[in-house]
Amino acid sequence: MARIEYPAVIRELIAQLKRMPGIGPRSAERIALWMVSAKNARPAEIGTAIAAVAESIKPCSECGFFTTATLCDFCSDESRSRDILCVVEQSTDILPLERTGAFRGRYYALGGRISPLDHIGPEDLRIDALIERVRTDPPGEIILALGVDVEGEATANYIGGLLREYPVQITRIAQGLPAGGGLEHADELTLSRALTGRVRV
Amino acid sequence: MARIEYPAVIRELIAQLKRMPGIGPRSAERIALWMVSAKNARPAEIGTAIAAVAESIKPCSECGFFTTATLCDFCSDESRSRDILCVVEQSTDILPLERTGAFRGRYYALGGRISPLDHIGPEDLRIDALIERVRTDPPGEIILALGVDVEGEATANYIGGLLREYPVQITRIAQGLPAGGGLEHADELTLSRALTGRVRV
Repeated sequence: MARIEYPAVIRELIAQLKRMPGIGPRSAERIALWMVSAKNARPAEIGTAIAAVAESIKPCSECGFFTTATLCDFCSDESRSRDILCVVEQSTDILPLERTGAFRGRYYALGGRISPLDHIGPEDLRIDALIERVRTDPPGEIILALGVDVEGEATANYIGGLLREYPVQITRIAQGLPAGGGLEHADELTLSRALTGRVRV
Repeated sequence: MARIEYPAVIRELIAQLKRMPGIGPRSAERIALWMVSAKNARPAEIGTAIAAVAESIKPCSECGFFTTATLCDFCSDESRSRDILCVVEQSTDILPLERTGAFRGRYYALGGRISPLDHIGPEDLRIDALIERVRTDPPGEIILALGVDVEGEATANYIGGLLREYPVQITRIAQGLPAGGGLEHADELTLSRALTGRVRV
């Protein structure tokens, strides 16, 4: 006779939890069993929170950040300068920059980066809308805050080329040694860029 | 000015995810952002699976295992012997035993173990119903499959004392070296019990 397993609803829950990033089969089973057996688990509250996010969160129509309205908190904050626009790959890149406290302008998420291996071309990103924004509401400076890898470089070069005909200053965030990083742990490319980007003290 | 954070529904989701076992603040944020930004996340499906479990899973009226009906798959399986009853602390202890394939009797979950430090006494466990079951539908043997710690011992001794007046054989699962465990890694108590419980080869 086949051995007995968990009821189907629990097995389905384990399968769904396993899809979440960083959750393996054992963690998924542990969380599911916690939900059905811990006194203070209150799984309905977790389900409600997920449903609320699934129903109400959408991308901001201007920058792509998460919002429940048409405009996100950044784009509806008129105290933030429209003269400086920080372009990132993903909307999830925005808050890490914001938390530095070093930027008070506007953000713009492309929705990814050019990556031929993943079949992602410029037409899959929000690049046309970026150019249109620069044309109609030109900022003085655009900071390209893209990843330091082949795809980030390609995306930066492509956007830089398109924007050359507009009177806007294009910058990139600095590359070099990370905070707390000694020279002995840095790879060659990082060191080479730290040298190239040296500044006068 | 205060820095901008995620919308309230995302912050609430992160707080809810953080309550799950093994999920810290960073994992919770990572999962929440995956839910709102990954193309194949389909968070509504996860929310539905959690809601289904929260609504439909309850303890089996006989053994305490998870079920969506009155009786669980174990207790409604008449091919399983009623002559041998395996008593465990938690309903989550049942499937690990079942997966060994070494047991084809019935299970009984106490719902915990006696633990004065946690203010859990015999009256908080399903011990009365166990005695009642032994009285009305006596099995030939009761296996106490309880934890090997002070609370497990106390619970086993307490139940053993209550059952002494009934014509049922009481056994405990064996204690000794775990599979793959060398003697150099075993603690003194494990070794002492492995010695005491030695069997003729």
